[in-house]
Amino acid sequence: MEFKGRDIISIRDFSREEIDYILEIAKSMEPLASKGSDMLKGKILATLFFEPSTRTRLSFEAAMYKLGGAAIGFAEAEIASVKKGENLADTVRVVENYADVIAIRHPLEGAARLAAEFAEVPIINGGSGAEEHPTQALLDLYTIMKEKGKIDGLKIAFVGDLRYGRTVHSLAYALSYYDVELHLVSPESLKMRREVLEAIKEKIPVKEETSLEKVVPISDVLYVTRIQKERFPDPAEYMKVKGSYKITLETLSKAKKDSIVLHPLPRVDEIASEVDQTPHARYFKQVWNGIVTRMALLALILGAVK
Amino acid sequence: MEFKGRDIISIRDFSREEIDYILEIAKSMEPLASKGSDMLKGKILATLFFEPSTRTRLSFEAAMYKLGGAAIGFAEAEIASVKKGENLADTVRVVENYADVIAIRHPLEGAARLAAEFAEVPIINGGSGAEEHPTQALLDLYTIMKEKGKIDGLKIAFVGDLRYGRTVHSLAYALSYYDVELHLVSPESLKMRREVLEAIKEKIPVKEETSLEKVVPISDVLYVTRIQKERFPDPAEYMKVKGSYKITLETLSKAKKDSIVLHPLPRVDEIASEVDQTPHARYFKQVWNGIVTRMALLALILGAVK
Amino acid sequence: MEFKGRDIISIRDFSREEIDYILEIAKSMEPLASKGSDMLKGKILATLFFEPSTRTRLSFEAAMYKLGGAAIGFAEAEIASVKKGENLADTVRVVENYADVIAIRHPLEGAARLAAEFAEVPIINGGSGAEEHPTQALLDLYTIMKEKGKIDGLKIAFVGDLRYGRTVHSLAYALSYYDVELHLVSPESLKMRREVLEAIKEKIPVKEETSLEKVVPISDVLYVTRIQKERFPDPAEYMKVKGSYKITLETLSKAKKDSIVLHPLPRVDEIASEVDQTPHARYFKQVWNGIVTRMALLALILGAVK
Repeated sequence: MEFKGRDIISIRDFSREEIDYILEIAKSMEPLASKGSDMLKGKILATLFFEPSTRTRLSFEAAMYKLGGAAIGFAEAEIASVKKGENLADTVRVVENYADVIAIRHPLEGAARLAAEFAEVPIINGGSGAEEHPTQALLDLYTIMKEKGKIDGLKIAFVGDLRYGRTVHSLAYALSYYDVELHLVSPESLKMRREVLEAIKEKIPVKEETSLEKVVPISDVLYVTRIQKERFPDPAEYMKVKGSYKITLETLSKAKKDSIVLHPLPRVDEIASEVDQTPHARYFKQVWNGIVTRMALLALILGAVK
Repeated sequence: MEFKGRDIISIRDFSREEIDYILEIAKSMEPLASKGSDMLKGKILATLFFEPSTRTRLSFEAAMYKLGGAAIGFAEAEIASVKKGENLADTVRVVENYADVIAIRHPLEGAARLAAEFAEVPIINGGSGAEEHPTQALLDLYTIMKEKGKIDGLKIAFVGDLRYGRTVHSLAYALSYYDVELHLVSPESLKMRREVLEAIKEKIPVKEETSLEKVVPISDVLYVTRIQKERFPDPAEYMKVKGSYKITLETLSKAKKDSIVLHPLPRVDEIASEVDQTPHARYFKQVWNGIVTRMALLALILGAVK
Repeated sequence: MEFKGRDIISIRDFSREEIDYILEIAKSMEPLASKGSDMLKGKILATLFFEPSTRTRLSFEAAMYKLGGAAIGFAEAEIASVKKGENLADTVRVVENYADVIAIRHPLEGAARLAAEFAEVPIINGGSGAEEHPTQALLDLYTIMKEKGKIDGLKIAFVGDLRYGRTVHSLAYALSYYDVELHLVSPESLKMRREVLEAIKEKIPVKEETSLEKVVPISDVLYVTRIQKERFPDPAEYMKVKGSYKITLETLSKAKKDSIVLHPLPRVDEIASEVDQTPHARYFKQVWNGIVTRMALLALILGAVK
């Protein structure tokens, strides 16, 4: 396995063996995330966020600083050279002179891949279009592994918007490498994209459902996502759907005692705030896991860890 | 006195003894502010500014870098997760995973306190609503101590908008711990808030005035604030008031020779620019003092200084 | 030659001897730009960008981080204290308390000079109005020196908008110190400003042209700039002009074999993308050279290099 110099564009570019290795390195980053380290001293990360994302941007920056490096970048497309009409290929070929690695978020699918074709430094896809968010998938896997002790053998349910949420697409592909059973719970209009569904069905058992009730009692992991109002032409339809996929104390009263609830965040109200206090809630721990997973990726592709 | 892990929300959370200790530590930071230090190496400050404030944000960041730490954050509410509808409690519980300490500025009173209730890492209030700005009060006290050699025994005048200016509220509470005489000079409609006035009157002599003339000759410290046009329904009223509270060379011709003029900045024209050249002017020195005071606070609450 | 504490406002403030020395120090920065250094550890750069410029801002920040320092600042005028009505002199006198050196970009000519008058820390002009961009001129000279092995004796052509482009003004002044022949190729309405033209004509041979054809075959360096649509009252005129100054493979088929094409970037379409693959293209290398040149300037004015 060679990670040095490699781009992180799609979770599908990695084998299961490689993913397992990344998770192992992430684990070894836990003490460094608390104490700090000089592993990437003198190295610079550029964060090019053409679409805002406080969470992902700050997570990458924190990971870099905790390894002793530094971060530069921008957080909006409404800026400078892009406004002046520069294309992405040029922006990337400029910025790679400033930085040792580039994390990019872009509203268009394929943008990160295009950037990687032009750049000589490694590119990390920090979310592109509705398609891919590979570092989120890796931190989700790391969270499941850390909280449940394993991934193989679990029953995992995705709940909410499975059509437009890029994190569920990347995570579905990732989970298809493992021996899991996947339950997809969503309103009719927000069902998992066809191409993802077909690809993962070849490898693992997948069931589509519209009701939470049947799924909660058997799930080891409930992975909840936001349902966005904008996705519904009819507001009344939105209000109805919204209620049916909300995780409350009552929902969880039927859950396995040791099941965990995850969410890529930000949440609006698809998880009731009283759930935060239950032992099921692990969504804020996911955030910490995002730091150590990104530390692992940065250390690996910059060659600081073999 | 224990500072490690403590939140800095209101100046009223501190005793006089504690404030004096912070000022002492601030003094010991002066050489480190010039040369730099590794005291907070590996530590990260997150600045969450839901309301813009170049000055305060850069001051916190500079303090952190001078101690060898790093800073991440955002400078506008118009950003990412907040736009997506995330509430403050969630934002804080996410960001505390990225950082060892959080400085927050927010347009709503009580926001910093709420953040502190949810966060496990220490929260520093960088200004919330019109109510509190505790680090500004501490740097103001430090400036008075440094420039006058003492705080006890001084006659101090506040001039301008005492109703909406959060710095004067925090500073009034802070000064009420000391043996000072306070003169409050403002137009009728911008008088000091009732609740602040009542609280401090129990502890120190306070006089409200509408004219500068009587106050200038007896004051050791003139603390001037901006009078904002938006506060006046009638622009003519604003123009009249504005002129009467302006500090000019003429105003200062009647001042004590060793009196000092302070201002939380930015100023618009409530202090004439020719005053900058006089020995009274100390408002740019306040800025430097803000760095050392914030270095002291960061070092104390992160446990690098006992 | 003394650089410590010096402002970098106009290229005309430097002698040829000084410029040659800066280029020499830039060369010595090449290995540090790759490996990182602790030369400016504990030092802070403030970037005050009142006009957006991703490229220049990130270049300064990267230069500072590569030397072990840190960077703070803002990237838009729409921010905090400026919104509140603060003037530039006050902003600079505040920010110099936070930083050891300030890089400023401002839409108004003279802004950087004014800042330097008020600040005690060194000011670097990161572009002010349409007039000056001295660090760009230095990195352009460094690129020519590095790519051609010399500056004296070369034939250099400027192509495009020579009226509003600040980089060509600074570079023209800089080149007038050397033994070069300058060809100015532009549409009638975008000819080089009179005052620049007169100043440089006293020192070096300068020819104004409206056609590229005659100039390409004799030039050692083609320095291309953007022609902005907004400059033309008549869109039809713009379309015509635009085509005539575009560098394509066909244009370059008549060029000297070892001629180089430079561009301050961002480009829109004044250089066809197929030119990127030719050995003439050096515009992305310019970006790297910007880092080492700015590292040299920071090290010199902060006294880390004599």
